Amino acid sequence: MFRSNIVSMTGYTPGEQPRGGDVVKLNTNENPYPCSPAVKAAIGRVCQAGLQKYPEPTALDFREAAAELLAAELPAITPEWILCGNGSDDVLTILTRTFVDSGDHVRFPRPSYVLYDTLAAIQGAKCDVVDFTPEWTLTDRFTKHCDKLRLAFLANPNSPSGTVLPPAEVARIAAALPCPLVVDEAYVDFADSNCLSLVGDSDRVIVTRTLSKSYALAGLRFGFAVAQPQVIEQLAKVKDSYNCDALAIAGATAAIGDRAWFDRTRAAVLETRARLLTELRARGFECVDSQANFIWCQPPGGDPKSLYERLKAAGILVRYMDYGESARGLRVTVGTDDQIDALLTKLDELLK
Amino acid sequence: MFRSNIVSMTGYTPGEQPRGGDVVKLNTNENPYPCSPAVKAAIGRVCQAGLQKYPEPTALDFREAAAELLAAELPAITPEWILCGNGSDDVLTILTRTFVDSGDHVRFPRPSYVLYDTLAAIQGAKCDVVDFTPEWTLTDRFTKHCDKLRLAFLANPNSPSGTVLPPAEVARIAAALPCPLVVDEAYVDFADSNCLSLVGDSDRVIVTRTLSKSYALAGLRFGFAVAQPQVIEQLAKVKDSYNCDALAIAGATAAIGDRAWFDRTRAAVLETRARLLTELRARGFECVDSQANFIWCQPPGGDPKSLYERLKAAGILVRYMDYGESARGLRVTVGTDDQIDALLTKLDELLK
Repeated sequence: MFRSNIVSMTGYTPGEQPRGGDVVKLNTNENPYPCSPAVKAAIGRVCQAGLQKYPEPTALDFREAAAELLAAELPAITPEWILCGNGSDDVLTILTRTFVDSGDHVRFPRPSYVLYDTLAAIQGAKCDVVDFTPEWTLTDRFTKHCDKLRLAFLANPNSPSGTVLPPAEVARIAAALPCPLVVDEAYVDFADSNCLSLVGDSDRVIVTRTLSKSYALAGLRFGFAVAQPQVIEQLAKVKDSYNCDALAIAGATAAIGDRAWFDRTRAAVLETRARLLTELRARGFECVDSQANFIWCQPPGGDPKSLYERLKAAGILVRYMDYGESARGLRVTVGTDDQIDALLTKLDELLK
Repeated sequence: MFRSNIVSMTGYTPGEQPRGGDVVKLNTNENPYPCSPAVKAAIGRVCQAGLQKYPEPTALDFREAAAELLAAELPAITPEWILCGNGSDDVLTILTRTFVDSGDHVRFPRPSYVLYDTLAAIQGAKCDVVDFTPEWTLTDRFTKHCDKLRLAFLANPNSPSGTVLPPAEVARIAAALPCPLVVDEAYVDFADSNCLSLVGDSDRVIVTRTLSKSYALAGLRFGFAVAQPQVIEQLAKVKDSYNCDALAIAGATAAIGDRAWFDRTRAAVLETRARLLTELRARGFECVDSQANFIWCQPPGGDPKSLYERLKAAGILVRYMDYGESARGLRVTVGTDDQIDALLTKLDELLK
């Protein structure tokens, strides 16, 4: 009675989210710092006003605030250029459903965000996977023509590598592709560049962002897409009517309004990232330079899975990722300095 | 560049959600009372603990509490029988994506919840619409065999009529249908019966519920499906990993735990519903006996659209619904007694 593609797929397995408290959690790229106090205040106000009414269906308050904030990089932007979602996963789902039909092809690099594979599978589409080069760049294979290709995803910064393709290169890829390109900028606030301006030049570039990472709001579920208004108009037909709840809309709007919190927290994460990179390399890890809030590394001795398990047994969760032939390693989230100290101490013990 | 079915569809238009305050809002079946204070307390605790981490991906706290609550009517239920969603719209979306492919057929009655049409259109499926009889029952046309039929929806209580098909009749329909039946029980807490026990007897019956109406939490977005575990297992592959946020999970769990609030609020809504029905009939409205928190009616004079507009101009929002040949009328949400007084006073003035 089910669609055959649903029965045959395995489903996306999110990183472990232990219910208990006492874990050093460096496995799902959460921000280790509490969110802006303005978020709690805004949520409190909504609770006070009551939750019995439906939220504004398009998260207009957020879109107005975000358009103002992003105009520095994309002068043409108005609220009509923004679609909000229940986390950027919701936005990626909406994009896939808008562009991709059963039997179509979806292209994305490997190793990258595993969800793209799942989204294609749910649509009954075929994945056209293109391996990154050893230098984390893409060859012309990524822009190769294909009649059935309907959508391409590019996480930039990429996960698990933390690497970034420069905007000029992404623009070249977008122009060469025969289909729209989703630039998934979930981690972009930790990077040196972004692709927002490309949206102004092409209706085939769609940038997605989330408040989960840089705004420390993974628990709130809020993300958004930026695209030209005629694209947003089609995406809006596919989203659930009230996909963002009243608390998330108010909290997200407050979050992007607190620039002091953002600057301070970003600086702290980048500082700890630099230290973590140095310390891992000092212990013989092979690490990729990261522009995200995590570091992709291969431990000395070449057995990342065993090290992941031994760390987990010691109450320290990192993410072991196995992309088969193309990559195996550990993705370590940049935590607080205390969390990183706990990790390093335990590594010294385990690698002795 | 878009799928053709997306471009050609019009998209679901939710009821008006005015941003300002001073409207008597009787148009989208919200509960007029504030939610249980336990909800605010639970949300406050989550805010205090922080929002930086991802929520538990399956809303386990809620599923445990709900299984305990619903065991009275469905003894076999465990948390594995429940799938949670970002409002029951999310659950209906997941169901459609799990069962329905491009070119398949989806069956539902008319007039009913307009979203079923939208969900089918997004999948590229064909709507097989079956008119209710004048007595709001369904003929054998609803269970007719069709090779392409993959899913049937039945809102029970139905919107806009507020009518209910008894569980025995729903069981007969489910057994006769060649596909799974979704019994959408969004309004069931205002009714005299429900179909939960049918889920125990058949893996082809799926019951969906929402906390938007009877728990006064439309702003929070929380709904769930009850089905046999082997069905839930497939649905879970299609949902977004973190489709319910941490605040909604905690709030929803607290809400269903406060039975005193529920009983008191339900009783108040039912009492006002009875009064509204009497008063509308006294003014010459043709009304359907309702088991939901709204009343479907045709005003005297036969021009529901004009009356809707005149009420709106006076700051009173009801829902004008136009299903073409099959039905036109006003759906009036059961508000507080004060709101209903305001409506009746204005009606007396307009219908003079």
